[in-house]
Amino acid sequence: MLENTVNIEGNSDELKKLSKELALKLSKTQQTLREKKLPVIILVDGLSAAGKGTLITEVIKLLDPRFFKVYSIRPRTEEEKRYPMMKRYWDILPEYGKIAVLDRSWYKELVSIRQDDNCDEKEYLTAIKNVVTFERQLTDDGYLIIKLFLHISQKEQKRRLEKLDKDPDNSWRVDKDDFKKNKNYDKFYRIYDEMLELTSKPYCPWNVINADAKVNTRAAALTVINEVIEKALENPPCNCPEPNDKFTYEKVPKLSETLKTPKALTREEYDAKLKACRKELSSLHSILYKKKIPAIFLFEGWDAAGKGGAIKRVSYALDPRGYEAVPVAAPTPDEKNRHYLWRFWRSLPKSGHIAIFDRSWYGRVMVERLENFTPENRWQAAYREINEFERELTHEGFIILKFWINIDKDEQLKRFNERMNTPEKRWKITDEDWRNREKWDAYEIAIDEMTEKTSTKDAPWHIIEGNDKHYARISVMETIIDALKKRLD
Amino acid sequence: MLENTVNIEGNSDELKKLSKELALKLSKTQQTLREKKLPVIILVDGLSAAGKGTLITEVIKLLDPRFFKVYSIRPRTEEEKRYPMMKRYWDILPEYGKIAVLDRSWYKELVSIRQDDNCDEKEYLTAIKNVVTFERQLTDDGYLIIKLFLHISQKEQKRRLEKLDKDPDNSWRVDKDDFKKNKNYDKFYRIYDEMLELTSKPYCPWNVINADAKVNTRAAALTVINEVIEKALENPPCNCPEPNDKFTYEKVPKLSETLKTPKALTREEYDAKLKACRKELSSLHSILYKKKIPAIFLFEGWDAAGKGGAIKRVSYALDPRGYEAVPVAAPTPDEKNRHYLWRFWRSLPKSGHIAIFDRSWYGRVMVERLENFTPENRWQAAYREINEFERELTHEGFIILKFWINIDKDEQLKRFNERMNTPEKRWKITDEDWRNREKWDAYEIAIDEMTEKTSTKDAPWHIIEGNDKHYARISVMETIIDALKKRLD
Repeated sequence: MLENTVNIEGNSDELKKLSKELALKLSKTQQTLREKKLPVIILVDGLSAAGKGTLITEVIKLLDPRFFKVYSIRPRTEEEKRYPMMKRYWDILPEYGKIAVLDRSWYKELVSIRQDDNCDEKEYLTAIKNVVTFERQLTDDGYLIIKLFLHISQKEQKRRLEKLDKDPDNSWRVDKDDFKKNKNYDKFYRIYDEMLELTSKPYCPWNVINADAKVNTRAAALTVINEVIEKALENPPCNCPEPNDKFTYEKVPKLSETLKTPKALTREEYDAKLKACRKELSSLHSILYKKKIPAIFLFEGWDAAGKGGAIKRVSYALDPRGYEAVPVAAPTPDEKNRHYLWRFWRSLPKSGHIAIFDRSWYGRVMVERLENFTPENRWQAAYREINEFERELTHEGFIILKFWINIDKDEQLKRFNERMNTPEKRWKITDEDWRNREKWDAYEIAIDEMTEKTSTKDAPWHIIEGNDKHYARISVMETIIDALKKRLD
Repeated sequence: MLENTVNIEGNSDELKKLSKELALKLSKTQQTLREKKLPVIILVDGLSAAGKGTLITEVIKLLDPRFFKVYSIRPRTEEEKRYPMMKRYWDILPEYGKIAVLDRSWYKELVSIRQDDNCDEKEYLTAIKNVVTFERQLTDDGYLIIKLFLHISQKEQKRRLEKLDKDPDNSWRVDKDDFKKNKNYDKFYRIYDEMLELTSKPYCPWNVINADAKVNTRAAALTVINEVIEKALENPPCNCPEPNDKFTYEKVPKLSETLKTPKALTREEYDAKLKACRKELSSLHSILYKKKIPAIFLFEGWDAAGKGGAIKRVSYALDPRGYEAVPVAAPTPDEKNRHYLWRFWRSLPKSGHIAIFDRSWYGRVMVERLENFTPENRWQAAYREINEFERELTHEGFIILKFWINIDKDEQLKRFNERMNTPEKRWKITDEDWRNREKWDAYEIAIDEMTEKTSTKDAPWHIIEGNDKHYARISVMETIIDALKKRLD
């Protein structure tokens, strides 16, 4: 891969003139990006001293600073290490119509894994897979990712490192490691070459730029950026070929197969069981915390199914310093202007912590589907995207428990009426709830499809029979307790 | 202070019943908080093993998880240490109508400073001042801060630490430091006592709770919380007495005193000066970065005054990995629902970095004042609040440079018309710009008042004569260069 560099021929003055024109062109295109809401990620990676900083300065030179942002990617901090690898990249996703320019990227992290002499091949390939999935998911959502790799020769790199090292203003930019890597140039060449090969996809290819001469680099990079954006404005990115990997699913009952026999607990049974569950869950939480295992408890269910009540009972058993409730409402403008998974990546719990999601990313295949907020091909793609998202988390050690709290239509009506007739509860019921109720049958189809297509072995759905609130709450708690125990064994 | 504890008398059953009622009451009040948009911060601090976690669990037990959040405050991470102390507390400010519950707080940080045997008294008092200012600014904005201090005796603390230490599920909660502190109980008693004394204000008093017996603690804490919230719902917090400290101001010319003689640069002069400034600024940036000095360059100015052009010329001289442009537009719903300084605290640069603000917190005393978005007493208070904010930053080592780019009315008209007549520039001009132009005189009064009242010695305003764009840009760059050089000397 590293052999196929983009080169622009010309003498220095011509190239400088060309770069100037291209930078101007880019600044004009930036307005079109905004109008067409095309989000762009330009990532600049490459060997040390290849001129990434200088190039970025040239690229952004004429851009309107309100619509782009530069991120400098450093090794993960201790705090960042408590989250999955890709989280910090999701965090900095640009809004539709804006540009993010990255100085180094997730590829630097891949190299760090690979360069280690005791590199765990499996870990490396998982990380590669996460990166490829990330880029594919973004592209499918309309993000344009432009990957530039600045490639310099061993000789030129050595020359630059020595020059920087001698300059008192710049010597801090160079460390011993850089010189060591220059000596081991061949090793890194192979690592990069292989990595670029593994991650260059037709929808998101690498552009290797010869970086031995700065004027050429600049002209070549700006040429690539302008061309790629122009093409994307004509044919917005999306519809990447679907990957081959399959998920293993668990069987989940259809909603109509549940609630066939009434199940209930007496007040006494409930109180006794609740007390026991609380004690057990509390002590399990303490162990999770100690072992730094992250967990997600996710609640979905019909309106008035009792999600809130179940969440309260669970959280009361938890140390408030080790969990967080994440209520999910309609997306804010910030959220609407980005990939739908963005806000959920941002809300992930760190190692040892629990996040309790009150509604979740599954809105994508329920309300967004039924209210036509999202085109069909996009919510259809969400089944896979969500499975991938959850797989990435479980591979990182997450425990994911997904609950659908199920009630029947009569029970819902009873609860709606009760809410209407109880002044303190009236705020809980809205016109929207009544409107959703009218779409019960369509929702039921969507829910059955959702649980079927996203009940993977690592993150299966649990359908909780909810006509009796006490029974439902204890079911939830027992399911959680069983899962935690199984994991901790 | 520690002597005056809140005690609730009664036998265990009575107290348990009382707590239950109070928790229920609180959950009902939570709805009123939402309706009245009263934001509440409940902070629970106290000695180790005083039962903070248990108490918090009881307080939130019946609350609706969508409207509160618990934060556990740990020692600052290395990353957090690159920002001013109070930033992470500003970051977690609840929205109006919501509750934040803090397990430990900024007070833990004060104690950490104070307990050090080589404690720098001045540093400690500055930190105290920052805390008092923070609480006052929030209270003035309508935040209710409830400060609970759980106080236990040396004997009881020892008993609990030993019990925890013996319990395999909980021993990780205790470390050697805790036992050491228990031995030095008297020292910490004095530190806490003094700190509480220094920070208990009529508008934001401490509530010391006797924490030797858990049932009493819970009943006492819930009583305090309910009472304080009830009072605040009748009389929303605000109008704290103004502190006595004064700022030293620098004299700034009124806008009408500037632009009296035309100043301009020829293209040749401009090109030469720009090149020289760029080089110098670039090398100064490198030193700032190395010395980890944070800086803010803030740009305000009439519409079409040339803020964007000046910002571009400055940023082109900077390494994109070490600065960030922060465009400030109308607040988002998230931002509108919190103290107006929240979003600016969140955008502060870390040590060694520069943030370039394109518009800023000064919108509070310009557009918010003139469009009546903010009541007069609140924007009047902003002069002091902003001075305090900037003082806190400069004390932390920030360089703050504030520019007003000034043009006259004729020049603005010329530029507006030019924008209207140039298709690529037309998006830059909106109806709002024309409406603002009609209010020129009112704006001029507000701006003169603003520069007069917020041009402090540490963060003075620079009025840039902007009728000639070239002249303005070079003025800005030279001002920055001079200021950085002065600081680095």
